[in-house]
Amino acid sequence: MDVVAGIDIGGTKTKIGLVDHHGVCHKQLFFRTRKYDDFDAFLDKIKESIDQLMSDFDFPVNLIGCGIGAPNASSRNGTIENAANLKWKGSVPVLEKLKKRIDLPMRIMNDASAAALGEMLFGNAKGMSDFIVITLGTGLGAGIVANGKLIEGYDGFAGELGHVDMTLGDGRLTGLGVRGGLEAYVSATGLKRTILHMLSKYMIDSRFRDVAFNDLHGEDITKAAEEGDPIAQKAFDYTANILALAMANFTAFSQPRAFFLMGGLLNSGKWILDPLQEYFEEKLLEVYKDKVEIRTSGMEGKTAAICGAAALIWEGRQPTTE
Amino acid sequence: MDVVAGIDIGGTKTKIGLVDHHGVCHKQLFFRTRKYDDFDAFLDKIKESIDQLMSDFDFPVNLIGCGIGAPNASSRNGTIENAANLKWKGSVPVLEKLKKRIDLPMRIMNDASAAALGEMLFGNAKGMSDFIVITLGTGLGAGIVANGKLIEGYDGFAGELGHVDMTLGDGRLTGLGVRGGLEAYVSATGLKRTILHMLSKYMIDSRFRDVAFNDLHGEDITKAAEEGDPIAQKAFDYTANILALAMANFTAFSQPRAFFLMGGLLNSGKWILDPLQEYFEEKLLEVYKDKVEIRTSGMEGKTAAICGAAALIWEGRQPTTE
Repeated sequence: MDVVAGIDIGGTKTKIGLVDHHGVCHKQLFFRTRKYDDFDAFLDKIKESIDQLMSDFDFPVNLIGCGIGAPNASSRNGTIENAANLKWKGSVPVLEKLKKRIDLPMRIMNDASAAALGEMLFGNAKGMSDFIVITLGTGLGAGIVANGKLIEGYDGFAGELGHVDMTLGDGRLTGLGVRGGLEAYVSATGLKRTILHMLSKYMIDSRFRDVAFNDLHGEDITKAAEEGDPIAQKAFDYTANILALAMANFTAFSQPRAFFLMGGLLNSGKWILDPLQEYFEEKLLEVYKDKVEIRTSGMEGKTAAICGAAALIWEGRQPTTE
Repeated sequence: MDVVAGIDIGGTKTKIGLVDHHGVCHKQLFFRTRKYDDFDAFLDKIKESIDQLMSDFDFPVNLIGCGIGAPNASSRNGTIENAANLKWKGSVPVLEKLKKRIDLPMRIMNDASAAALGEMLFGNAKGMSDFIVITLGTGLGAGIVANGKLIEGYDGFAGELGHVDMTLGDGRLTGLGVRGGLEAYVSATGLKRTILHMLSKYMIDSRFRDVAFNDLHGEDITKAAEEGDPIAQKAFDYTANILALAMANFTAFSQPRAFFLMGGLLNSGKWILDPLQEYFEEKLLEVYKDKVEIRTSGMEGKTAAICGAAALIWEGRQPTTE
């Protein structure tokens, strides 16, 4: 059986799995990214992890390549550049160095773009040539497919939709200091910031008057909304409204057939999705109305990032052995 | 010699020319679009015009296809749909009907997308695979190329960047009623609206205190700026600032190598371009800085739209005869 090593480098964990051409992740493990101050030691650990996973099979398996998803990855340069959540600073030549340890086809891409490719090969976007995946976690990421191909951009940094400014330069600052940046509003963190905004705007009662910012959690906000807390409900409505406007803008750019949403904010379910659907149709230009679907990802949560990374290698290929 | 008929359908004029594979327009003519209430009569006129242009050559010429640029054209459906500036309402099946008159390869696309293809084949974007053309006329249009291909979108309406909202739903209305729509700010019309905004915001003196909105003209605003009129200067600065922010947002989407600007607003030259360059670099995310050029179009003004339309057919082809 041919497999690809899917490697998801996150700020906290690095996950590695072996993925076949159906998108099934057969073996996986993870380790703490932060344990490795030294980038070479980190790559040694990746090599060792893949060897270990390969030796776990009790039938012949053929490794055909490594796909890597990471924040601030440049697909064109094969690097990770100045990633805010990673220790290694400057431009890190991931592919060049990993290739010295594993001499196989390799590709790196920002994590949301890898997720989009995973969705196209293995998930709900099968056979679609125009769609956008939006990841709603701590931040907001995006992977954009047009004409059946991922948009990588001039040197591989396309899809940074968390940093578009929709406030004419007069809004919240993101972690990168972008004023009005979308992810300052629409993300798990953005939702918490919106709770504070609503508490400041209205004097109505809410359980969150007794909770400090650092003690706010997404699941509590969802629960509060369920139980009728008006501040929680307003916060979801506000978040959905801004996301709808952003998605209407993105539609004017590449006219996708569908948006696929994934990430922690989706755990709030209907509190986000119902108003989002309503506001989105309302905000779309006439020529787009009733033509753009909003769907959730078809990738299984735990291995979605690994399979997305593996999709970078599986794209356009067939296995040579089953 | 092989030629393509490039047809530019505008609200006022329809221009037709015969274009060779170098992008040279050999023969051209125009007629008033509004004279033809009946769409079939309009198509008869197009057929007749092409025949006339073909008969003007005194050496053998081979017509190999027709490319059409038009507002609100759907490249996927071959139609023009609800174009605000055209008389024919609803969905007009342009390709289907023209094909009955001229049985050759045909393609239609919105005018700004056709301009982008023209720029790639014949203009300043030769050999570039990621760029955006922005047309700044009465409105704002865009043609986006990524991975060497025009982004058409699910049914051919991608690139409607004049209608993205950057004001969280709290700005000027466009002609289509989109609140905060970019073209309400950045276009020849947007500049005139900004003159009024500045006159309302500041009480400083200006020659435009004696001019009504309908008497405002772009060239007068440029002239006033040259002569030191503070309202004219502020209006250009404001326009450039919003365009810069929009272009920084678009960069986060597809990371183009360059933007190519064209259209009437560019006649204001440095008054737009100098502040635009400065604000744009300032607003770009760190990973994009110093990587995105702002350039003017390399297409000759008078025949740019015709050659763009012809590029729809010349894309990916070579002539069979010189």
